[in-house]
Amino acid sequence: MKRGDMDGIRFFQDFYPDALAQCYGCGRLNEHGLHVRSRWEGNESVCIFEPRPYHTAVPGFVYGGLIASLVDCHSTGTASAAAFRAEGRELGTDPPRRFVTASLHVDYLKPTPMGVPLLLRSTVEEVRPRKVVVVTTVLAGTVEVARGRVVAVLMPDSFLPAAP
Amino acid sequence: MKRGDMDGIRFFQDFYPDALAQCYGCGRLNEHGLHVRSRWEGNESVCIFEPRPYHTAVPGFVYGGLIASLVDCHSTGTASAAAFRAEGRELGTDPPRRFVTASLHVDYLKPTPMGVPLLLRSTVEEVRPRKVVVVTTVLAGTVEVARGRVVAVLMPDSFLPAAP
Repeated sequence: MKRGDMDGIRFFQDFYPDALAQCYGCGRLNEHGLHVRSRWEGNESVCIFEPRPYHTAVPGFVYGGLIASLVDCHSTGTASAAAFRAEGRELGTDPPRRFVTASLHVDYLKPTPMGVPLLLRSTVEEVRPRKVVVVTTVLAGTVEVARGRVVAVLMPDSFLPAAP
Repeated sequence: MKRGDMDGIRFFQDFYPDALAQCYGCGRLNEHGLHVRSRWEGNESVCIFEPRPYHTAVPGFVYGGLIASLVDCHSTGTASAAAFRAEGRELGTDPPRRFVTASLHVDYLKPTPMGVPLLLRSTVEEVRPRKVVVVTTVLAGTVEVARGRVVAVLMPDSFLPAAP
């Protein structure tokens, strides 16, 4: 499945303010980046990503650091969306709720084959105003290849770019 | 400090067999990759990495997924070197000892500023024939910005490319 805004879908990351959309993992404005995109599917959030041929570990298998990066950005995106949900607000309304990673844990269960789109499927374990915990399973086809757990915290003001 | 083989230093990853040197994070033969390089400094292993301008999280700060990738590859490299040490063998002798990541944990302590080379400094917490645990601190200048812990396991035969 091609990622993008097919079917008019808008992803969590499409609502990040421009100044916060530069991330290598998920920023729509980072031309070198991975462009991780996440959306709700009921109470779960999902992300599909097709590793590029050079995202290899040993030939034929996907690089674990890429999987960690996908878990990271998909989880902070999910944290943001969960915060909006908890506040009963639509994505993109003010004020923004952008989260950063306090801790990232990934268990690699099986070698991840190249050439298969990866599906990340996450549940929100905890939502507080300044802290969200997201648990993720990573699937290659029907095979669970990794599990992730991210503790995301509301972005500190020191991260925000100074006004121009 | 420029990375590479200045001063004739050879890094752990320089000794990986060609077939196992394709990794996006640390493979010397991956032209798109990060080229993580690690070496001993006494009983610690160290790695210096300069994030590229596009390895950003929000402007001015380094992408956490990059830090996770550095911790990952530096730790599996350290695991390999620790296995050779434990066997009393020189790097590059047969058989190779290449490790993969079973679990990766990173705690992000502070925002990591761009424009400063990152130093990873690791200790080997446990060495067994098929399992090595590596604990890492990540420094930006003198500031500890992250801590990592990797459980690395000896690469399963299923990862090895079939003979041509």
